[in-house]
Amino acid sequence: MKQLSNELLEELIEDSLPYASEGAVRPVIPFYDETKKDILGITVWTGDASYHAGNTDMYVPMQSTAKIVTLMLALSDFGKDRVFEMVGMEPMGDFFNSISQLEQNHTDKPFNPMVNAGAIATSALVKGGNVEERFDRYMQFLRNITGNPHLEMNEDVYKAEKSNGARNRSLAYFLQSTGAMIMDPEEALDFYFRTNAVMMCTEDFARVGYFLANGGREPETNKRLIPPEHLRTVKSIMLTSGMYNSSGQFAVEVGFPLKSGVSGTMIGAVPGRMGIGIVGPAIDAKGNSTAGGALIKSLSQELGLNMFGVDDDEL
Amino acid sequence: MKQLSNELLEELIEDSLPYASEGAVRPVIPFYDETKKDILGITVWTGDASYHAGNTDMYVPMQSTAKIVTLMLALSDFGKDRVFEMVGMEPMGDFFNSISQLEQNHTDKPFNPMVNAGAIATSALVKGGNVEERFDRYMQFLRNITGNPHLEMNEDVYKAEKSNGARNRSLAYFLQSTGAMIMDPEEALDFYFRTNAVMMCTEDFARVGYFLANGGREPETNKRLIPPEHLRTVKSIMLTSGMYNSSGQFAVEVGFPLKSGVSGTMIGAVPGRMGIGIVGPAIDAKGNSTAGGALIKSLSQELGLNMFGVDDDEL
Amino acid sequence: MKQLSNELLEELIEDSLPYASEGAVRPVIPFYDETKKDILGITVWTGDASYHAGNTDMYVPMQSTAKIVTLMLALSDFGKDRVFEMVGMEPMGDFFNSISQLEQNHTDKPFNPMVNAGAIATSALVKGGNVEERFDRYMQFLRNITGNPHLEMNEDVYKAEKSNGARNRSLAYFLQSTGAMIMDPEEALDFYFRTNAVMMCTEDFARVGYFLANGGREPETNKRLIPPEHLRTVKSIMLTSGMYNSSGQFAVEVGFPLKSGVSGTMIGAVPGRMGIGIVGPAIDAKGNSTAGGALIKSLSQELGLNMFGVDDDEL
Amino acid sequence: MKQLSNELLEELIEDSLPYASEGAVRPVIPFYDETKKDILGITVWTGDASYHAGNTDMYVPMQSTAKIVTLMLALSDFGKDRVFEMVGMEPMGDFFNSISQLEQNHTDKPFNPMVNAGAIATSALVKGGNVEERFDRYMQFLRNITGNPHLEMNEDVYKAEKSNGARNRSLAYFLQSTGAMIMDPEEALDFYFRTNAVMMCTEDFARVGYFLANGGREPETNKRLIPPEHLRTVKSIMLTSGMYNSSGQFAVEVGFPLKSGVSGTMIGAVPGRMGIGIVGPAIDAKGNSTAGGALIKSLSQELGLNMFGVDDDEL
Repeated sequence: MKQLSNELLEELIEDSLPYASEGAVRPVIPFYDETKKDILGITVWTGDASYHAGNTDMYVPMQSTAKIVTLMLALSDFGKDRVFEMVGMEPMGDFFNSISQLEQNHTDKPFNPMVNAGAIATSALVKGGNVEERFDRYMQFLRNITGNPHLEMNEDVYKAEKSNGARNRSLAYFLQSTGAMIMDPEEALDFYFRTNAVMMCTEDFARVGYFLANGGREPETNKRLIPPEHLRTVKSIMLTSGMYNSSGQFAVEVGFPLKSGVSGTMIGAVPGRMGIGIVGPAIDAKGNSTAGGALIKSLSQELGLNMFGVDDDEL
Repeated sequence: MKQLSNELLEELIEDSLPYASEGAVRPVIPFYDETKKDILGITVWTGDASYHAGNTDMYVPMQSTAKIVTLMLALSDFGKDRVFEMVGMEPMGDFFNSISQLEQNHTDKPFNPMVNAGAIATSALVKGGNVEERFDRYMQFLRNITGNPHLEMNEDVYKAEKSNGARNRSLAYFLQSTGAMIMDPEEALDFYFRTNAVMMCTEDFARVGYFLANGGREPETNKRLIPPEHLRTVKSIMLTSGMYNSSGQFAVEVGFPLKSGVSGTMIGAVPGRMGIGIVGPAIDAKGNSTAGGALIKSLSQELGLNMFGVDDDEL
Repeated sequence: MKQLSNELLEELIEDSLPYASEGAVRPVIPFYDETKKDILGITVWTGDASYHAGNTDMYVPMQSTAKIVTLMLALSDFGKDRVFEMVGMEPMGDFFNSISQLEQNHTDKPFNPMVNAGAIATSALVKGGNVEERFDRYMQFLRNITGNPHLEMNEDVYKAEKSNGARNRSLAYFLQSTGAMIMDPEEALDFYFRTNAVMMCTEDFARVGYFLANGGREPETNKRLIPPEHLRTVKSIMLTSGMYNSSGQFAVEVGFPLKSGVSGTMIGAVPGRMGIGIVGPAIDAKGNSTAGGALIKSLSQELGLNMFGVDDDEL
Repeated sequence: MKQLSNELLEELIEDSLPYASEGAVRPVIPFYDETKKDILGITVWTGDASYHAGNTDMYVPMQSTAKIVTLMLALSDFGKDRVFEMVGMEPMGDFFNSISQLEQNHTDKPFNPMVNAGAIATSALVKGGNVEERFDRYMQFLRNITGNPHLEMNEDVYKAEKSNGARNRSLAYFLQSTGAMIMDPEEALDFYFRTNAVMMCTEDFARVGYFLANGGREPETNKRLIPPEHLRTVKSIMLTSGMYNSSGQFAVEVGFPLKSGVSGTMIGAVPGRMGIGIVGPAIDAKGNSTAGGALIKSLSQELGLNMFGVDDDEL
């Protein structure tokens, strides 16, 4: 087992970067194009120290990593029972934007809060009088848990989300038709599109991971912002469903909770140990960063982070 | 957090037993009928000591818990790459005997080795010249890892499996039609039916769990029988897919690798800590023991076994 | 074989009315309630004479029977090739509002113009500068082919369609997401909801059937309004897909083109012979009038209307 | 409208033959290879006269055209009610060998007797003490209706069917698992494979079509062998489901009952007018002869055979 250091991270970045060529940058994201393909950066935050390597300055939209922040807020606002009346907690063997699964899932609710339909349903479970208030609360919470008061939504990304949102709109109205949407679908979608458009860099992503790993405490004050039960719930759902249709493979190869976004970002939470933030815009067909995926796999192996056991004796 | 003791287990059994009335005993299993409904037993094995409560004498067929033993053998015999050429590692949002998912899964292989189709494909990956040889190796391995040389297959259960095997036969021939079956389907099925019919009691199930939790060592000699990498693989697949269509919920509520069988049995493996065996024949619509499910949830909570965090401070 | 007469129709109505008790009136349709359950009326129009029995005065919304009028207009406006670029012509083994089939239909277009998704796609293929113009053209065409200048849309039905339209909205946005929707989905839906809300009685429905059966001629002038090729297309699609998930059964038992709506109405077109209009609000789980279904079956049998052969010698 | 003549058929063959290059010959059929690709032959039998053109000497296996003969026998042996207890009559929007549709079809029976699962279920509904007796009755019936006492099963084709039968075996066991298979699946499959392997030429296929078109009479004696009701049933199911996933398109473009087989053959039945037999081994992705499909479309158009109307005035 190796020691965590900037040098180690740099080595791993170097080994992982070639995998970027196997992926593609998602063109519908504003200012994303092939020039962003070879970017790869990582920050690891352990509470005491921050380790980093590669490109850690690039701000990218949260995209699907926002789903775990929304889920934390929804659990906090409505409690576990109410949230899981509206959405399931089972992994789903289908693409993240599948609508068939909604129709065939006989409980009439989305499989889990990590698939688009489930995240849209969860978006309706964040308190606030209107979409502005609800999104303000989201931003306040996000700034608190990252300790970064400068986080903002990017207007262009938000507009792009909205204008490319036909499939998500279809999901939202489907939820309305089955009774799994408790507000105007357009309101829930608006909130959802906004959360996807918040810009963060590897440090911010790592801080979200650390918040989950470290008992839900505000960085400054160490005050608990959210009960451990909810963090546990979020982390286990990340492990079973956080990496789109490759969640099972990442559970095997990495072995701790992860959440990815199609902007090529990834949040990792190693319970009791560290938070990890990765940005690597080139993604595979399932939606995960190809270089980022390679990086997190070697990091888990080198540092012995796999919760299901490591190569040395376990006892 | 409480201390593990026979008294604690007895308390938890008492609290969980009422849930048996919500389940039903699977009638196609020989000598299973409503008189077995109120049975509940548990053994916890920590390497040093065995704790137990309730009915620990009843021998029940392994049913789907056999899938994890078959997977260990297949990984051992053919290696990870070859095994996962024939079967996936993704959780599946559908019933364990679904055939639609086979047809719609565009990779033409079963989702994972915990669903029937996947376990039948894995059954074809245990070495041996014929079904007898292959099953002998299975029994030898099972006796080694449990330390119980008396384990046997029950002939009546085997016959019942065979004569009620139409759906599994359908799955096996489907696999043959897509090229995901490397031997005569009837041979693979025969092996599969036999493994399902091996009789064990809570102590045996707990020993299998401990083998997984404790680095794959033979109880007597402490000799490693299987590399840690394979155990890690099996455990993470158990977490994402071991409890049928409730795997996600058990990942949240229990938070460590489990595998259940329709005989109402359950194997738990808490990495580095303990193996758990439960027998409670009354199962719910998804296939999991109702009382056993309640029991494992409270055990995880009382002993703080959830890998994703516990209610006390995590750091 | 019997002779067509008012007396015969009255007998058949009497025999069929008891089947109304097996159905239910769709409550989301304004002024539809259980008091409408025992209504049954029929008009048969042969070009020379009109035969009728039962309640022929009740005006009911066209609902899905509008789909064949929209299809005629779309074929007339854009031609067969263009229309069937956007929608298929295959029957679909699933419910009329299925969205799974959209996702799994690898051509990315709805199965046919008789299912909701297909009709919404077809609605976008009626020419006009805006929804008012397009709907005016629809009404003009409908008044021409029925010879009834008084036909109107009912505002309450339109509003109910709109406010209960979540599933159809979901379908429309899904079509947009796959590129199968050539205009703003809300515009296409608005047109679609309006067509569903046009009120007609049995005589009007019979006239639409006769228009299809009789070469597409305007009743007054006998002038051809639409080429025979398009009528043939519409009629064959009615036969394979006009009666929701019972289309196959009606093809067997009735044997000529039919289209039903959830208002309990039905249009029949016996090529070269007659048009039939039925109103019977109580519908079965598939969406077809129970009494109306019984009625059309006996009518086909008594008059020897089955295109696939009759009980007497065929040659 | 043209007159039926050998010259016309020769012209149409010439025009249609180029479409053969768009198809492919199914290699698993014995003696089928690319040298058979450019074959095309047709026979039309009107009761009085036989018209033909192209290659009418080649004997090819019936493959799926056998499904309509089996259905006639099953209806004759068990009656309509019993047959349609075991199999539906609805068209299915999926591939002919789909197993998903079996699982998702909530009635637990195959959609219709033209899809493989449905034909296997129907195969179990032909009377006889064992598979030999049952197949003898099939051959006797087939010889009677074609007037050809020399028809035989080809042993090599039968063996090929059997050894490539994994998917059909999967379907048969699935049916057994849901209770939709009334005998040993292997017995039903054996009968099914044999019927697929009977060799016929265009004249024989045309005779089967004529039998359906002409009231079910034995050619020699004009004696009715089967009641008109059953023929009507078979013909309407052919129209809605006889041409695999292109049935809807053929209903539109041809407009009378057809059944195709993957050997590139096709049976047409124009009610009251004629039977048509076509052989053209190159098939498209759906399973229909490409040249044969072009040929039957032009034949329908040239002779005005479309039951849903012709281009001249209809009345």
